[in-house]
Amino acid sequence: MYPMRIALGIEYDGSRFHGWQTQQPGVRTVQQALETALSKVADHPVEVHAAGRTDTGVHASCQVAHFDTEAVRKPHGWVMGSNIKLPDDISVLWAREVNEDFHARFSARGRTYRYYILNRLSRPALLAKRVTWVHGPLDADRMHRAGQTLLGTHDFSSYRTVHCQARSPVRTLRSLRVERHGDYIVMEVYADGFLHHMVRNIAGVLLAVGAGDRPVDWAREVLEYRDRTQGGVTASPHGLYFHKVNYDPAFGLPSDTSAFPLLML
Amino acid sequence: MYPMRIALGIEYDGSRFHGWQTQQPGVRTVQQALETALSKVADHPVEVHAAGRTDTGVHASCQVAHFDTEAVRKPHGWVMGSNIKLPDDISVLWAREVNEDFHARFSARGRTYRYYILNRLSRPALLAKRVTWVHGPLDADRMHRAGQTLLGTHDFSSYRTVHCQARSPVRTLRSLRVERHGDYIVMEVYADGFLHHMVRNIAGVLLAVGAGDRPVDWAREVLEYRDRTQGGVTASPHGLYFHKVNYDPAFGLPSDTSAFPLLML
Repeated sequence: MYPMRIALGIEYDGSRFHGWQTQQPGVRTVQQALETALSKVADHPVEVHAAGRTDTGVHASCQVAHFDTEAVRKPHGWVMGSNIKLPDDISVLWAREVNEDFHARFSARGRTYRYYILNRLSRPALLAKRVTWVHGPLDADRMHRAGQTLLGTHDFSSYRTVHCQARSPVRTLRSLRVERHGDYIVMEVYADGFLHHMVRNIAGVLLAVGAGDRPVDWAREVLEYRDRTQGGVTASPHGLYFHKVNYDPAFGLPSDTSAFPLLML
Repeated sequence: MYPMRIALGIEYDGSRFHGWQTQQPGVRTVQQALETALSKVADHPVEVHAAGRTDTGVHASCQVAHFDTEAVRKPHGWVMGSNIKLPDDISVLWAREVNEDFHARFSARGRTYRYYILNRLSRPALLAKRVTWVHGPLDADRMHRAGQTLLGTHDFSSYRTVHCQARSPVRTLRSLRVERHGDYIVMEVYADGFLHHMVRNIAGVLLAVGAGDRPVDWAREVLEYRDRTQGGVTASPHGLYFHKVNYDPAFGLPSDTSAFPLLML
């Protein structure tokens, strides 16, 4: 095995990627772009593992990934070298040498996603494909209250896509916060992990509640059905950001990892 | 003449436009995109006049423009109709009927631009072409102090491009503020009007001062030369936003016109 394991913090604009990875041949993925760039810097083929495998169109303000290498480079060298070779919609924020116990996905203790909604009459131009646009009125406080009924450890079958491959539908939602800032509404969710489409399905239910189409209790009712067909619409990927991952501090990764300033929460 | 004059607030991502207008044939401009869309909504050819003619790559969080029409539409109809026909990097924020004394450019009492700098080791991905990236350390406080020496009414010849066609090089700079927010630095400038490249040339001088390559007094020295060849580098257009225009309140235009949430200042 290669003697060295490197962890990376990565920012990307997901709008022109077919997600982190895909089975489809010949399409652009974040993983393939990273592996191409890092293989050149390492001077041997590199395989990259991410904390969260984001879908088509989903962004990351700080994804974490790791790879093994025999190349000896300073952290700064990995950052600068890969950023020169990466396309302009991916940027490596930091690199750290980690011990072989570290795995970007399996060592993660918690993950945070943010979902940004632009709630105004006119669609976004400066943030096109970077926020989800809703032109009708939304009540962020109702959305927040509905979200609180999902906190804790539950079977989230109603909130995962039928294509989800996770063995267990049980996850622990540790916090969910919905706040309005002018024309923008932000939902931040923190959990041990998320099922496939779980954040977008929660957003879809809360959007229906916020629009007044459904009562506040509906989020909990949907949860209790344990049946995806009783759920709401899967909200658009444009507003979704993989925001943060938590690891044991013993791994020594930067903790203040998110530099995307939208709304400065 | 057409019986009705309409004012519009417009947001655009300038990164794929050759500015507001250009003499070059066959390239994409904001003016041409707007005229094409509005002519369809009006059902007759429409000519659009802007408060500020932005350069290639420069953005607008709220540009103001006007046009004359014989079509009778509600303000909401102009907004929705044009947004359906516009490309996704332009959005009309509001429309108001104004009297014929109003001219987007000549009635403007003051204009505000913002210049956003990302100051960190790694280049931007989520905000690629939407901020100016400087990887070396910058002292925002020095930049602010240097900027204060430019306030007031001066001959800004040293800060305008040699191609500037304005008759007079005299402008009144009413305020200039430089602030750091984490990895971001924002310069906001407010003046009666700006010469061609004036904001980017001020940014270029302040960046050299912020990097410690020039003393704080240099901004004023450059001003006093009244000679562009003594000035600094013209800073990149990526970080520049046409932010706001002031008019006589009697025209009845929306005053809270800026909805771009970057850094929420």
